[in-house]
Amino acid sequence: MTTAPSAADVNAVTTPLAKPPSLATRCVAETVGTFLLTVAALLSPPHLTFAIVGATLLVMVLAIGKVSGSHINPAVTVGLVVVRKFPLSEGVAYFAAQVVGAFLALGLGQLLDRRLPETDPAVNATWFEMLGTALFVFVVVRVVLAKLPEAASALGIGVALLIGIAIAGPSSGGVLNPAIATVLLTGDLLRGQPIQPFTYLLAPLIAAVTGALLAFYLSPEAEVAA
Amino acid sequence: MTTAPSAADVNAVTTPLAKPPSLATRCVAETVGTFLLTVAALLSPPHLTFAIVGATLLVMVLAIGKVSGSHINPAVTVGLVVVRKFPLSEGVAYFAAQVVGAFLALGLGQLLDRRLPETDPAVNATWFEMLGTALFVFVVVRVVLAKLPEAASALGIGVALLIGIAIAGPSSGGVLNPAIATVLLTGDLLRGQPIQPFTYLLAPLIAAVTGALLAFYLSPEAEVAA
Amino acid sequence: MTTAPSAADVNAVTTPLAKPPSLATRCVAETVGTFLLTVAALLSPPHLTFAIVGATLLVMVLAIGKVSGSHINPAVTVGLVVVRKFPLSEGVAYFAAQVVGAFLALGLGQLLDRRLPETDPAVNATWFEMLGTALFVFVVVRVVLAKLPEAASALGIGVALLIGIAIAGPSSGGVLNPAIATVLLTGDLLRGQPIQPFTYLLAPLIAAVTGALLAFYLSPEAEVAA
Amino acid sequence: MTTAPSAADVNAVTTPLAKPPSLATRCVAETVGTFLLTVAALLSPPHLTFAIVGATLLVMVLAIGKVSGSHINPAVTVGLVVVRKFPLSEGVAYFAAQVVGAFLALGLGQLLDRRLPETDPAVNATWFEMLGTALFVFVVVRVVLAKLPEAASALGIGVALLIGIAIAGPSSGGVLNPAIATVLLTGDLLRGQPIQPFTYLLAPLIAAVTGALLAFYLSPEAEVAA
Repeated sequence: MTTAPSAADVNAVTTPLAKPPSLATRCVAETVGTFLLTVAALLSPPHLTFAIVGATLLVMVLAIGKVSGSHINPAVTVGLVVVRKFPLSEGVAYFAAQVVGAFLALGLGQLLDRRLPETDPAVNATWFEMLGTALFVFVVVRVVLAKLPEAASALGIGVALLIGIAIAGPSSGGVLNPAIATVLLTGDLLRGQPIQPFTYLLAPLIAAVTGALLAFYLSPEAEVAA
Repeated sequence: MTTAPSAADVNAVTTPLAKPPSLATRCVAETVGTFLLTVAALLSPPHLTFAIVGATLLVMVLAIGKVSGSHINPAVTVGLVVVRKFPLSEGVAYFAAQVVGAFLALGLGQLLDRRLPETDPAVNATWFEMLGTALFVFVVVRVVLAKLPEAASALGIGVALLIGIAIAGPSSGGVLNPAIATVLLTGDLLRGQPIQPFTYLLAPLIAAVTGALLAFYLSPEAEVAA
Repeated sequence: MTTAPSAADVNAVTTPLAKPPSLATRCVAETVGTFLLTVAALLSPPHLTFAIVGATLLVMVLAIGKVSGSHINPAVTVGLVVVRKFPLSEGVAYFAAQVVGAFLALGLGQLLDRRLPETDPAVNATWFEMLGTALFVFVVVRVVLAKLPEAASALGIGVALLIGIAIAGPSSGGVLNPAIATVLLTGDLLRGQPIQPFTYLLAPLIAAVTGALLAFYLSPEAEVAA
Repeated sequence: MTTAPSAADVNAVTTPLAKPPSLATRCVAETVGTFLLTVAALLSPPHLTFAIVGATLLVMVLAIGKVSGSHINPAVTVGLVVVRKFPLSEGVAYFAAQVVGAFLALGLGQLLDRRLPETDPAVNATWFEMLGTALFVFVVVRVVLAKLPEAASALGIGVALLIGIAIAGPSSGGVLNPAIATVLLTGDLLRGQPIQPFTYLLAPLIAAVTGALLAFYLSPEAEVAA
């Protein structure tokens, strides 16, 4: 019913790159994206889940749309295969990558389950600050490397922070910003109880480095060289 | 008071195509769009209806704006006819297509009425997962075929998922993603009660194929050939 | 401290037109914009006012940014005069136009005050359906005539409908769409009580014509001729 | 792992300017941005904090992205240094500027603490009207000087007003518009109690001048000369 998918179609959700990344790189992007989408589904406050999951997909289209097309959902992959905008042969790899990402999120979700008695709130807070900061900085670095236009950059970066705070908020307050944390620690202002500097200062910076390196690793050569 | 509408005006809500689709194709687009807008009005959670209906129109302007102009409301058609940006002769056809779309949504709404005792929750869940996935994948495929720029693509795709989850949520949890469903089924995590794989795995994929084919069918020749 | 404002600066909030509209036309645009902004401030549900007023300004920047710059606030006019992006001589006219718009909204707000015993709910519902539809169609026609790009069009049109429904909702249900109204009237579905067809069918179409003509009247010659 | 950062990288979050502003100017922008981000974190209604903080970052990327890159968070600076999109030598200056901004916000937050018995509500209302208006007009003037495209302008300006109203609302009602205030004062409508004209008329205009001058001061030469 239509022509076969071209090379540029495999990352065609937004303006595609002339030379798309390798299938392996694209599969890692699908795993990361589906991991974050599933994290949003499992760990966002229940009454906001519909909005946070939708916002996460919005942000991922901006962050990894030029890498893998940001399907991060087998229903999207199947839909694009049916209209010949994605090769069937690669669809199976995408599906596997997506399921792996969702399982990783399930594991993290079980580890950080706020309802379980054995989770230590202080330790949990540290993990949530790291998760939120890594998600946020991953998106910022991808947006910078992809050289998105103004509205797209602002939308991607601002909404990524909103998502990070919504997910981390119930556990850690969702600071995700060592400059603000410095100030809060000075006055011991956060929730009026003693808090650990590691959680809000060092841990987020470690997470920022991790998110930035992952974003760099996923960036197509054309972007990095420019 | 102004010049007569030109051929390009009939799909002029966003950058129009030089050669607009046939009136028949545009009327099908108006029916589909009004159907989805009315579904949002009838089936979204009452306290969110204003936001979900507005968001659905936003998404439809991106998805079918280049096909029919995405009026999906007789008030818009009348307004554009008055300022001579739409031919009166085609306005009647648009109006008929819009009413048909609204009636189809009414029929579906009565079938799936969550307040009625005769609706089986498990069957209803399957229908809502299919409805949400079909809406979502329809928008994704149209956005890809219309080659929208980054911010428009991300907005269309992310908000379409938000709408789908908001509508399906009360009946099925609004998963709309077989990769996430695989993981949820493994742990039997969804609502802590036994759920049927068909509802979350096979049914959404059938819906994805349906949505994708409908999106492809509505795509102007110029887009598909490119 | 900087150069004097140029002709193009008077409507410079977004990409300005080479030949800006006359001061009189721009003042009418400021009156209409401030009227709608004040309507949003006075008549939106209290817990949503911050969001609906912000959204109204967003929509007005898209709808009348190319006409008057969409200041619709003396604080903006003063700010732009201070940095020499707007001529002081025209600032007084803008201020007068803005105050007139706000007073018109106050008058309407007092007429439609939902808390007063003398307001007839059925009559009020008709006025709110007309207000919401006129606002919505005004924005749609301006967006079409201004030939905004995809994301801007979708944002303007979708958010305008969201605003209209949020304002009209508590009085009339916020249908604002005669196709959906046809269906609701068939099943007498709206709120389960008898409703008048005039409120949801004819009145919105009259409002649509009014909104469209106002939008056309405010459109710069360059847009209409194109 | 990649090339060294170029001159254009230091303000590279959105389309960078060929000749970036001096480090001193960029540090003032980082201080202003972090100040406003921390104000949003400390003074927005608790149930909306996640959304208002995310929205503030979105707006700041539009307002000062072309000046300093709008990091306003050490985690972002560290992330960009790691992928060599920002020079390590300037990172320390950015960090210092960010901490200063956060401390200024803490000071303001303690001054305006709504929970303390010694704060006079009437005085507080004036400060909040000024804070909200200054934030709003700062963004408007930066958006105008940066000549952002339509969707970006509308998003920046509309969301800035939303943020200002959300922050000022609980203390002053969040009018932020002397035209609307004129009307409200006429009818003594605001909260049904006597209010002071200074709070809603003169104080916001003083704040508008302050915000506009700060925005002008931060604007790169290339923008102002154009």
